[in-house]
Amino acid sequence: MKVNGVHYRSIWPIGEEKVGIVDQTMLPHAFVTRSLGSATEMVDAIRSMVVRGAPLIGVAAAYGLALAIKESASDENLASACERLNAARPTAVNLRWALDRMRAVLAPLPPGQRAAAAWREAARIADEDVELNRAIGRHGAALIRELYSARQRPVQILTHCNAGWIATVDYGTALSAIYQAHDNGVPLHVWVDETRPRSQGLLTAWELAAHGVPHTVIVDNAGGHLMQHGQVDLVLVGADRVSARGDVANKIGTYLKALAAHDNGVPFYAAVPSPTIDWSIADGLAEVPIEERSESEVREVAGADAQGSPSRVRIVDSATSVANPAFDVTPARLVTGLLTERGIVAPGALATLFPEHRCAA
Amino acid sequence: MKVNGVHYRSIWPIGEEKVGIVDQTMLPHAFVTRSLGSATEMVDAIRSMVVRGAPLIGVAAAYGLALAIKESASDENLASACERLNAARPTAVNLRWALDRMRAVLAPLPPGQRAAAAWREAARIADEDVELNRAIGRHGAALIRELYSARQRPVQILTHCNAGWIATVDYGTALSAIYQAHDNGVPLHVWVDETRPRSQGLLTAWELAAHGVPHTVIVDNAGGHLMQHGQVDLVLVGADRVSARGDVANKIGTYLKALAAHDNGVPFYAAVPSPTIDWSIADGLAEVPIEERSESEVREVAGADAQGSPSRVRIVDSATSVANPAFDVTPARLVTGLLTERGIVAPGALATLFPEHRCAA
Repeated sequence: MKVNGVHYRSIWPIGEEKVGIVDQTMLPHAFVTRSLGSATEMVDAIRSMVVRGAPLIGVAAAYGLALAIKESASDENLASACERLNAARPTAVNLRWALDRMRAVLAPLPPGQRAAAAWREAARIADEDVELNRAIGRHGAALIRELYSARQRPVQILTHCNAGWIATVDYGTALSAIYQAHDNGVPLHVWVDETRPRSQGLLTAWELAAHGVPHTVIVDNAGGHLMQHGQVDLVLVGADRVSARGDVANKIGTYLKALAAHDNGVPFYAAVPSPTIDWSIADGLAEVPIEERSESEVREVAGADAQGSPSRVRIVDSATSVANPAFDVTPARLVTGLLTERGIVAPGALATLFPEHRCAA
Repeated sequence: MKVNGVHYRSIWPIGEEKVGIVDQTMLPHAFVTRSLGSATEMVDAIRSMVVRGAPLIGVAAAYGLALAIKESASDENLASACERLNAARPTAVNLRWALDRMRAVLAPLPPGQRAAAAWREAARIADEDVELNRAIGRHGAALIRELYSARQRPVQILTHCNAGWIATVDYGTALSAIYQAHDNGVPLHVWVDETRPRSQGLLTAWELAAHGVPHTVIVDNAGGHLMQHGQVDLVLVGADRVSARGDVANKIGTYLKALAAHDNGVPFYAAVPSPTIDWSIADGLAEVPIEERSESEVREVAGADAQGSPSRVRIVDSATSVANPAFDVTPARLVTGLLTERGIVAPGALATLFPEHRCAA
């Protein structure tokens, strides 16, 4: 997508030496790119959410492995780099998916051929991510157009967190649908949940503003009230891991919006590229590991000071404990449909779209 | 309750000249008291949430009327002061309740007797608030003790916003129950919702820390996840207005917690002193006016800078719209019980506890 008229992806190789990324901890207050030169730097970038979003961190891990192999192409280093990259974030399954795929390509090769193959395969995963997201957007845009046809007024869409182009390599997942519908002339407006503690809704607002999509930021508490009053036609979110039966692990608070959607007859969809599906688990609530992140994310809020410079305030002092679970799981019974690159499907029928995984589930 | 060893109420008369209050916009970062000398200052204090909490703003309006009468005891001034005070916040019904009561006492009196009567009646309302809250706390503490007896481990209570002593004249409503249970030796722990946009959860944390009650602050998104994992035994909140059939208007986001409680079999109670009941309406969802507050509450976050001084950061810039509905309505079907000064009752049976209002409903 474009930033100030220049087309960017959220991640790109620099020769076969470094990897360029957009520093998402600086957004939306500043647009800063960085280059990472080692697997250790990539692990740090993933863990600290300099790069974030399930699809993007899968691709970032693939490039991280390419950086690791530049240092040493040995079996030992391949194994240990996979382990370190996979451990950087526990909830999104895309990390494991990308690393498994990289290892399947690299392990059979003699060490001398691994570096070039790693850069090639990582680039392939990145390009495929772009294509998956384009397809997801196409199916999602058709859904939004249907809602518009039925209502004949701007479609009101609520989203949580950021499932936009910067959470992927390009286009986004949930936002890909919104961008394509908007570009096709479907009138719509997006309610953007702030998404405490990291306020990734502000990344969504930044993306939507840049693309000219009408939107309004609300606090995470407000969506239920809007749904009670008929102000939401569709809840559309991304996902960090989806179980084979369609339970959706996504940013903390998604479950509350799914409950409100269900209570008010509002359709709830999650946009799910296939690398986000974990075919090895059925019960998402019991089996998806939920990352507990740093207390400082709750204790402090980042923004801009009166001069517009990045600044932080402390809101919870040390006399008070804080807890910070980063994800929750929305049970499949609350999910109207999953938006995949192969089309839209009820959560219970996921395997019918991906018959090659039916046994694994 | 005590602050640094000194007993405070949240509001107190100073002679028959001024009214002392705790400036709640400075909490929890600083404890500052102020004195207000006119009805206009009281209207501003209520509107800007220098004083806040449904029970407290009722008492504040009563004292505001006493301040108005000090200026002029005419019928015209009595009527216009009532109107201005009542319009300061639209959702909590306590304002109207207190003003109706004051007017019923003052209107029949000759103007020369109104000032002294106003100070007396405002003080009576304040003292009654304290007694109501003590009784609510007694009933609520018994409920918490029952949960402890059944579980034999610390009772996990989730609360939203601040229904503590500073939201009332003293003791609080929901927190009154928690204080009394804690003081009676019932082991408990409180999950405190941050409660964006104004972060009144931090007022709750400040109160609980001062009283030595174990507690943990979480973002508003987290409560559903905790309930899914059996980490909440009771949701206990305050209320700004309760309809005759038991619909509960309370701080925005309460409805989402009630949905999660219902979905996970967690009991959901609201603490409701009788002045918070609006017997004139049945359908809270359709009939309670929902205040839309300033955009700046969403755009900015208040906290402390690195030196501990009050500071603000801007998180949403002007390229993005914001909306800020301040309350939502939890339908009675999601409410396990209402905690009143006369005992605990199912929402549908509210009128059985208050038979004197049965006709009005």
